[in-house]
Amino acid sequence: MSLMTYTPPLPPFAGICTFARMPFQPTPSAVDVAILGVPYDSSTSYRSGTRLGPRALREQSLLLWGYNNALQISPFTALTVVDAGDVSVVPVDILATHRAIESTAESWLNAGAKLITLGGDHSIALPLLRRHAAVYGPLAVLHFDAHPDTWDSEYPGQKYSHGTPFIRAMEEGLIDREAYIQLGIRGPTSGPQDYVDALHLGARMITMDEFRQRAMADVIAEIRQRIGTRPLYVTFDIDGVDPAFAPGTGTPEVGGFTSYEVLQLVRCLVGLNCVGFDLVEVSPPFDPTAITSILGANLVFEFLSLLARSRQSSPAGL
Amino acid sequence: MSLMTYTPPLPPFAGICTFARMPFQPTPSAVDVAILGVPYDSSTSYRSGTRLGPRALREQSLLLWGYNNALQISPFTALTVVDAGDVSVVPVDILATHRAIESTAESWLNAGAKLITLGGDHSIALPLLRRHAAVYGPLAVLHFDAHPDTWDSEYPGQKYSHGTPFIRAMEEGLIDREAYIQLGIRGPTSGPQDYVDALHLGARMITMDEFRQRAMADVIAEIRQRIGTRPLYVTFDIDGVDPAFAPGTGTPEVGGFTSYEVLQLVRCLVGLNCVGFDLVEVSPPFDPTAITSILGANLVFEFLSLLARSRQSSPAGL
Amino acid sequence: MSLMTYTPPLPPFAGICTFARMPFQPTPSAVDVAILGVPYDSSTSYRSGTRLGPRALREQSLLLWGYNNALQISPFTALTVVDAGDVSVVPVDILATHRAIESTAESWLNAGAKLITLGGDHSIALPLLRRHAAVYGPLAVLHFDAHPDTWDSEYPGQKYSHGTPFIRAMEEGLIDREAYIQLGIRGPTSGPQDYVDALHLGARMITMDEFRQRAMADVIAEIRQRIGTRPLYVTFDIDGVDPAFAPGTGTPEVGGFTSYEVLQLVRCLVGLNCVGFDLVEVSPPFDPTAITSILGANLVFEFLSLLARSRQSSPAGL
Amino acid sequence: MSLMTYTPPLPPFAGICTFARMPFQPTPSAVDVAILGVPYDSSTSYRSGTRLGPRALREQSLLLWGYNNALQISPFTALTVVDAGDVSVVPVDILATHRAIESTAESWLNAGAKLITLGGDHSIALPLLRRHAAVYGPLAVLHFDAHPDTWDSEYPGQKYSHGTPFIRAMEEGLIDREAYIQLGIRGPTSGPQDYVDALHLGARMITMDEFRQRAMADVIAEIRQRIGTRPLYVTFDIDGVDPAFAPGTGTPEVGGFTSYEVLQLVRCLVGLNCVGFDLVEVSPPFDPTAITSILGANLVFEFLSLLARSRQSSPAGL
Amino acid sequence: MSLMTYTPPLPPFAGICTFARMPFQPTPSAVDVAILGVPYDSSTSYRSGTRLGPRALREQSLLLWGYNNALQISPFTALTVVDAGDVSVVPVDILATHRAIESTAESWLNAGAKLITLGGDHSIALPLLRRHAAVYGPLAVLHFDAHPDTWDSEYPGQKYSHGTPFIRAMEEGLIDREAYIQLGIRGPTSGPQDYVDALHLGARMITMDEFRQRAMADVIAEIRQRIGTRPLYVTFDIDGVDPAFAPGTGTPEVGGFTSYEVLQLVRCLVGLNCVGFDLVEVSPPFDPTAITSILGANLVFEFLSLLARSRQSSPAGL
Amino acid sequence: MSLMTYTPPLPPFAGICTFARMPFQPTPSAVDVAILGVPYDSSTSYRSGTRLGPRALREQSLLLWGYNNALQISPFTALTVVDAGDVSVVPVDILATHRAIESTAESWLNAGAKLITLGGDHSIALPLLRRHAAVYGPLAVLHFDAHPDTWDSEYPGQKYSHGTPFIRAMEEGLIDREAYIQLGIRGPTSGPQDYVDALHLGARMITMDEFRQRAMADVIAEIRQRIGTRPLYVTFDIDGVDPAFAPGTGTPEVGGFTSYEVLQLVRCLVGLNCVGFDLVEVSPPFDPTAITSILGANLVFEFLSLLARSRQSSPAGL
Repeated sequence: MSLMTYTPPLPPFAGICTFARMPFQPTPSAVDVAILGVPYDSSTSYRSGTRLGPRALREQSLLLWGYNNALQISPFTALTVVDAGDVSVVPVDILATHRAIESTAESWLNAGAKLITLGGDHSIALPLLRRHAAVYGPLAVLHFDAHPDTWDSEYPGQKYSHGTPFIRAMEEGLIDREAYIQLGIRGPTSGPQDYVDALHLGARMITMDEFRQRAMADVIAEIRQRIGTRPLYVTFDIDGVDPAFAPGTGTPEVGGFTSYEVLQLVRCLVGLNCVGFDLVEVSPPFDPTAITSILGANLVFEFLSLLARSRQSSPAGL
Repeated sequence: MSLMTYTPPLPPFAGICTFARMPFQPTPSAVDVAILGVPYDSSTSYRSGTRLGPRALREQSLLLWGYNNALQISPFTALTVVDAGDVSVVPVDILATHRAIESTAESWLNAGAKLITLGGDHSIALPLLRRHAAVYGPLAVLHFDAHPDTWDSEYPGQKYSHGTPFIRAMEEGLIDREAYIQLGIRGPTSGPQDYVDALHLGARMITMDEFRQRAMADVIAEIRQRIGTRPLYVTFDIDGVDPAFAPGTGTPEVGGFTSYEVLQLVRCLVGLNCVGFDLVEVSPPFDPTAITSILGANLVFEFLSLLARSRQSSPAGL
Repeated sequence: MSLMTYTPPLPPFAGICTFARMPFQPTPSAVDVAILGVPYDSSTSYRSGTRLGPRALREQSLLLWGYNNALQISPFTALTVVDAGDVSVVPVDILATHRAIESTAESWLNAGAKLITLGGDHSIALPLLRRHAAVYGPLAVLHFDAHPDTWDSEYPGQKYSHGTPFIRAMEEGLIDREAYIQLGIRGPTSGPQDYVDALHLGARMITMDEFRQRAMADVIAEIRQRIGTRPLYVTFDIDGVDPAFAPGTGTPEVGGFTSYEVLQLVRCLVGLNCVGFDLVEVSPPFDPTAITSILGANLVFEFLSLLARSRQSSPAGL
Repeated sequence: MSLMTYTPPLPPFAGICTFARMPFQPTPSAVDVAILGVPYDSSTSYRSGTRLGPRALREQSLLLWGYNNALQISPFTALTVVDAGDVSVVPVDILATHRAIESTAESWLNAGAKLITLGGDHSIALPLLRRHAAVYGPLAVLHFDAHPDTWDSEYPGQKYSHGTPFIRAMEEGLIDREAYIQLGIRGPTSGPQDYVDALHLGARMITMDEFRQRAMADVIAEIRQRIGTRPLYVTFDIDGVDPAFAPGTGTPEVGGFTSYEVLQLVRCLVGLNCVGFDLVEVSPPFDPTAITSILGANLVFEFLSLLARSRQSSPAGL
Repeated sequence: MSLMTYTPPLPPFAGICTFARMPFQPTPSAVDVAILGVPYDSSTSYRSGTRLGPRALREQSLLLWGYNNALQISPFTALTVVDAGDVSVVPVDILATHRAIESTAESWLNAGAKLITLGGDHSIALPLLRRHAAVYGPLAVLHFDAHPDTWDSEYPGQKYSHGTPFIRAMEEGLIDREAYIQLGIRGPTSGPQDYVDALHLGARMITMDEFRQRAMADVIAEIRQRIGTRPLYVTFDIDGVDPAFAPGTGTPEVGGFTSYEVLQLVRCLVGLNCVGFDLVEVSPPFDPTAITSILGANLVFEFLSLLARSRQSSPAGL
Repeated sequence: MSLMTYTPPLPPFAGICTFARMPFQPTPSAVDVAILGVPYDSSTSYRSGTRLGPRALREQSLLLWGYNNALQISPFTALTVVDAGDVSVVPVDILATHRAIESTAESWLNAGAKLITLGGDHSIALPLLRRHAAVYGPLAVLHFDAHPDTWDSEYPGQKYSHGTPFIRAMEEGLIDREAYIQLGIRGPTSGPQDYVDALHLGARMITMDEFRQRAMADVIAEIRQRIGTRPLYVTFDIDGVDPAFAPGTGTPEVGGFTSYEVLQLVRCLVGLNCVGFDLVEVSPPFDPTAITSILGANLVFEFLSLLARSRQSSPAGL
């Protein structure tokens, strides 16, 4: 049916770049997972460039050989996965862009697919949360990021930008306040109230300082306990990772996670009720060696593996 | 009065980067020339990054030693020049950005200054043309560019973006149809009507093909003749220059001007009634050797030199 | 029928990268033109990297708006064009790679399509010439290059590499010795016999020195006269262009063509009997601003335009 | 009073680049802190380029939102901070450069300001230590570095260069031998005597090997105990950090600190009697993603926070 | 005897680049160690470029000051070391390249030298293992890598490429199955059988997951115990290190070793019977800041130090 | 006799990088030509980095296949050429550096060799002119540059830096005032007196504006006529070439020569009495694609060809 089924002998440098050579299918249908690009970067507060993120993530995804040894699953064979192409964004109009994202996401969710969305900047999480909450109700959210993204406004009088999606989502009731976890927060903020505001909104903020003082297993246990059986949406801002491991992003913040740590933190979600994912803020113009895109593609591979594992009857422990 | 007067022994690698070390003065006043940055890049149709253009142009401007040997003038001493800083743009809202540009530009023009504006993408030309036309009436416009920028719409339903400023300016009556000259047009267009539309709007389009078939002196004579004594606004999209000489831009188009040619084409305006300038589409993330910013800074230096020469009583010929 | 028909509103930064958004179709069929990638770079004599050339050319091709103003044609609507994907090359085995190229090319040619091939290094021209000569007989060849590529051997005992395809093609009788034109040759050679050997093989070598001493129109007239009505294969090594305009290549040679000149030299072929094209030696790791890939994509656009024009009844002169 | 007071809505990509938008004030006065650039790189032993360091640190400092969550302080409001611009260095003459540094530093220190100096290469630490010792007497020194910088001579017959400032400072009695701590030393040296010499001079050298074998808290306790109430000068060579986190430097040495570790090691100085700081060896030409400059700007932010905390009556523990 | 003996005052940026300024000597002779380049990259499965690896390693080796503080040895004075130049590889023919490698290696080994080989891609390990096994019998092998490199075939019908050297070496009986240790394995594989196959071949695979769960000392003890007194060949694929620390490689795999960890893991081999080393897969086109080459040069320095230490009578413990 | 005689089958990516694989010979002797590096960049007025110039020129020189088709000579066989390595410069001390240059140059000239020197910044021309004038008397000088380099002082009180070598040389009587030609001068200067001063010193300044208004043949005739039979020293600042063709330099100036033009202008010197050459200001950190180094290496190849041609009895015309 699809023109681009996986052809094993084609090496990573060859061929058309759909995500992991999955078939390109822009029309929503009842697949297991649709991988959707949103090349929108107009709400970035510093260096632009994430509009080229979906393209770079697709290109580097060709390095993913297919089997996840840690989670013991081959997501591309266990699931029907398609590359849904890119939402037709409108760089000059964030509201029109949000409408386009919502419309596309709604179609796929209605068709029964799960979505993994590739940004673009973090403002795109809001329309995605809207459509997922419309299907699943208020969501548990695991939010990897250096910044809380819960400012009331980043530009005077503007409610929507890449520093505000989660305050808007909380206001709109899209997030279950019992299960909103921020991971990786660090660095200077505009004032002491930034953290306070996030906490008042209901965020359980695990800063890098807290993370470094606790055992990984302890943090994982807390995350799993808080989420429980709730429908879980994972939103992953690549700047949650340290700039050494992910330099290609718009607002790098020193002192973050290693790549190994975030792989572990994502894998620990196995067996939970994952309903959606996004991977945002990869900015190829600042990624000359492509290591940020490669990390991003691997995180998407872990998301897929979680979905594949949840299809199996008895999810094994890590 | 100014904090940053020119200190000759400071070499180009040292010190705070205002344009050519001119004093930073954000409050409009009756100077001769204000250099104003507009770091807005949300309406770009391909690679973003021009929001970092004003910063890079300021940095490379420190290479400008001060005396223009071709035009025999020292613009920084002949004129009072200030660096007016940047307009407070709103990346998510092009209309709010246009209002901010208009407001800032109006204040400076009302104070009696002339403006040289550093982009940013080409969408910023529209609010600038509005304020200049409000002062000077319909403007002669000399428009360096690879593209006509006269599409009716670049994104469905969006009137404003970097491919549309000149159709809007024509519709709004800001441009004198007898004296609108496009220079450097080339490359594929969306259809045969692109050129036709531009011509119907009144543009005198001098394509690269035409330019290469005529003598430079002949082209210059036509330009000067068409403009005559009209108030002239020069809008310079750096992609009018060939990518070899100006790689750092969003939509590079091969087969363009050399840097020497555009220096000549700008210098040929000496003695005309220049009332405003912009230099747009310099994109530092795609300019690893800074040669695009260096060219841009030199073009601004030529703009300044034209203004300085027009202060003198008897403008000498080239 | 196709999955990736051209969707006008999608901007150049969005969507899956097939060449100019033409449908991906790996199965040979009776289209007008198939664009075929050959990501092979193991025979390069200096910097490797051209294996990433087809991918970069596809990515930058999204800048091609569609209408050729110089040739007055819209090749993507005048022709049925597909992106045939990449030949499954074998980096460790040049003979196996040549067989794969021949096999794929033969299938498309037998189906009635014309081929435009994206390299890869110049060694791929030999198997392509074989299959075209099998269909059309000995070919007129217009060969853009800084180097004659007619060495007998570049590595001891190796007949096939990127410096030898044309001596092999001459030996195999694939080229019509009356109509083999080299354009752009320059730079140091291994000895005085390099040029002599090329001339003895039958090449009409137009060096850069000769080109700079003659009028462009005169060169064009000679080219058209020599080719006449013969079936013409155009092989374009991007290093024929000067490194200022095409830095992203393996063996850059200073003192070459400008981009404007090669556009003119390709367009001048309008009305001739073009039967095949290749564009080789674009090396993205040495092209940080993408201007080489952008030039390459534009040259492919000109090739397509030539084919589109030859479909029309009365090919107009330039 | 100042022209460039902090304007909250201006995003990091906009405006003139003084450090963290603090006012530019080249004339010494009784501010709390002056941030001073020294763009001198002529004594580097490998890759030059740190002359562009102050400029890059200023540019990336615009990412510093203002509040230090770890130290619970807003240094830019708690202190009067100015950007003092750059010392007028003389690239061809290290002695003239040292005199210029001393003269400028003396003026600021006499006016009652504390200095945070941005290099430039590490040779600039010697004149800075001289002026600080002149005010405060022999100094406790915390020295972050991969190299001891205590060679007697790096070039035959030359006492001053970036590998010798600390032997000179010891010889001149500028450093309190009871409280000179080197942190991060590692890598090949010219011989076994390099470490011995440093130890004989009185340095307490905590190599990376020792650091990795001890608990961070233990190291911090030793540092604080050794320094006690002495006046403390912190000199931070960015190559103390691992090249993964700080590639943009002249003599990278593998196996160093993470960015998180150095943030902790600087913050641990809270409550001590800090009297001066420098941040040296950031080399922008080797920092294509700017992560080194971003780390450097954050370290300066921590320095400022330490000074702000020491203004408060009862310094809280970490 | 040699033209390029070490001249201490020459700084790292000056002079001809032989490895660590050791004399260039292409003729095999009875030196202690010959450093040999193999600039072959045609068997890479993703990004090519390692053909430039030997050159970059030589250039960055000039940063190695000479004394190893961790192992307390000056290898360049304790040993006679030469730079043997590069094997004359044949990019188009892997078998001819293997023959050239074997021939050169055999000559050096017969002369009594030990070899440290600089790649090039990992396919070069097979001919090296052949010549070492011919001298020493089946070898203990310590294999740093992200990938097992034990595929049966990477390209259809091709036995030799950079993903297959170790299955071939096992088949040929070159490796002692009791002492083949893989270190750093991680990331997606083509299927669950990849690891199983490696284990069946006899590999003791210490994955990153296992490594992160054990104490370093425990892993080191196991490595030393397994190797015992066997002749040990160390093959180091730089992609065993995390891309943050070693971005310049062809197939980066996230979640790997830090540079500090691999320095420790190499140093732990002191006192073992090391008979040969290679350092492969450094790809300069993807290493804009040179940190990968610098790490590679340091690893070679550690290899040399191990050989120097084994010349001493009583090897001290770490 | 030499260790590194030219081995034809070694491709450009392999082997030790001496210039064009000529033997490394640091001891002066009676060869025809010694190629000497001077990695000094401390007197640069903007971006540093030319200390890495000699290394990059050697690396890219391996692309020079050996035969000059324009001048019909094989300089590497017609002449005995050696790579003399680098002068032991002292970055912190320009006078010590000048002494080292003079001492090394004197030794080679006394031995009877001609020198081609690779910079480094342009300050190195002064000591070279001194030694050449000591041998040949006052020199005719052909000076390619964007800048006159005849400032009296670039830094207060400093007579020596990269902007002053030629005023010093004139003062010292090293240059024959009848035959000092500057080629390529352009761009802003510090004032109108810059040009006047250069002219007063005796320079025949052919600006880019004059060059563009005359025929190449006419300029060449004037150059040859002025030089006549005088001993000619050619000093080539790569910034004489346009930044599109030579971005890798410290103070790029737009509007310069193409690479083809400078090749012609150098070749036109055939038959004149060339006694020395330098090629300066190549800055590899700003040359990511290496096209500047490649151009520089080709210019050195032309210098060698001129020397080789002057060995022949009857120099043919161009």
